[in-house]
Amino acid sequence: MADHNALPLVVLAEKFASLPGIGMKTAQRLAYHVMSMDSDYVEEFAQALIDAKQKVHKCSVCCNLTERDVCPICDDDDRDHSLICVVESPKDVTAFERTREFGGVYHVLHGLLSPIDGITPDKLHIRELLARISAGGVEEVIMATNPTVEGDATAIYIANLLKPLGVKVSRLAFGLPVGGILEYADEVTLFKALENRNDM
Amino acid sequence: MADHNALPLVVLAEKFASLPGIGMKTAQRLAYHVMSMDSDYVEEFAQALIDAKQKVHKCSVCCNLTERDVCPICDDDDRDHSLICVVESPKDVTAFERTREFGGVYHVLHGLLSPIDGITPDKLHIRELLARISAGGVEEVIMATNPTVEGDATAIYIANLLKPLGVKVSRLAFGLPVGGILEYADEVTLFKALENRNDM
Repeated sequence: MADHNALPLVVLAEKFASLPGIGMKTAQRLAYHVMSMDSDYVEEFAQALIDAKQKVHKCSVCCNLTERDVCPICDDDDRDHSLICVVESPKDVTAFERTREFGGVYHVLHGLLSPIDGITPDKLHIRELLARISAGGVEEVIMATNPTVEGDATAIYIANLLKPLGVKVSRLAFGLPVGGILEYADEVTLFKALENRNDM
Repeated sequence: MADHNALPLVVLAEKFASLPGIGMKTAQRLAYHVMSMDSDYVEEFAQALIDAKQKVHKCSVCCNLTERDVCPICDDDDRDHSLICVVESPKDVTAFERTREFGGVYHVLHGLLSPIDGITPDKLHIRELLARISAGGVEEVIMATNPTVEGDATAIYIANLLKPLGVKVSRLAFGLPVGGILEYADEVTLFKALENRNDM
């Protein structure tokens, strides 16, 4: 915004524009919208930002984000603690929980290996995963990282670390998405679907 | 987000989702992103929200948003204060300022007439515009509201109020957008372009 705009609005628009997927034009629109909000609501919004940053931290067991010391999933005795699903981010935990089919627990890496971006194994929560398995009681670890170069590399790297510990390591199945159309499937997905075909 | 998510993140996502054009999925992504921000930056963001709401108000002359009593445009003696451009919102002032061609001043209505939505003339800053003109020194008022039903109705309503005050009232020209393709112009725009044709 040019200098004829009120400075606090310019500052706020810049903050919004620093969020992923929000350009300067949208950020300006959001800043103007804040002007039309109730004062109390704006203060709640500001407090919500600070609370999210200050009160939320990583679960001391699985590294998922939580405001408690141990997250509700790790703290749930009804879940199968011998089955750990390893995911890249907290968003993936949400995705699995939505299926309501997974009864095990999670481990959140908070990233994928990508040496070119400086993301080496020590930057991820791999040490914490090894500690959980060394503590015993874990039977299977499901590598549920994305089917991308980084996701596959991370899954293979961790699998190689875990196998000597005598734990079963599995990988999510790749194939045609349910409801998908064969004609539109990419070659790699179709190859995976062929390769991993099941008896009927 | 389900209840396994940290509550402060859910609260923050709800705040983001209350912004225009931001759905729950994007809001969750933004809330997660806040977690990865620097603590100081999050506090600046929170403060920017509060500042925008508390420090920014309407210019006592033109009703544009500013943190001063009189906005920099109204306060600029180099501008032509006898020429007032009437716009719907502060965003429109930004749009005109970007052209760097308008040397007059503005009047921001903060809305358009829309009786069906309860927006009657007393809800807009029309009284303030009449006061500026009554104070004298204004020669021309350009109605620069959008070429929509509400924009046209508002322009006509205000023009009818202003004409008895002996001030010239004009309307923005409507026609083909520069760089536009005739084939894709809608009928009304093409009709306006024909009707308002200029001698060459």
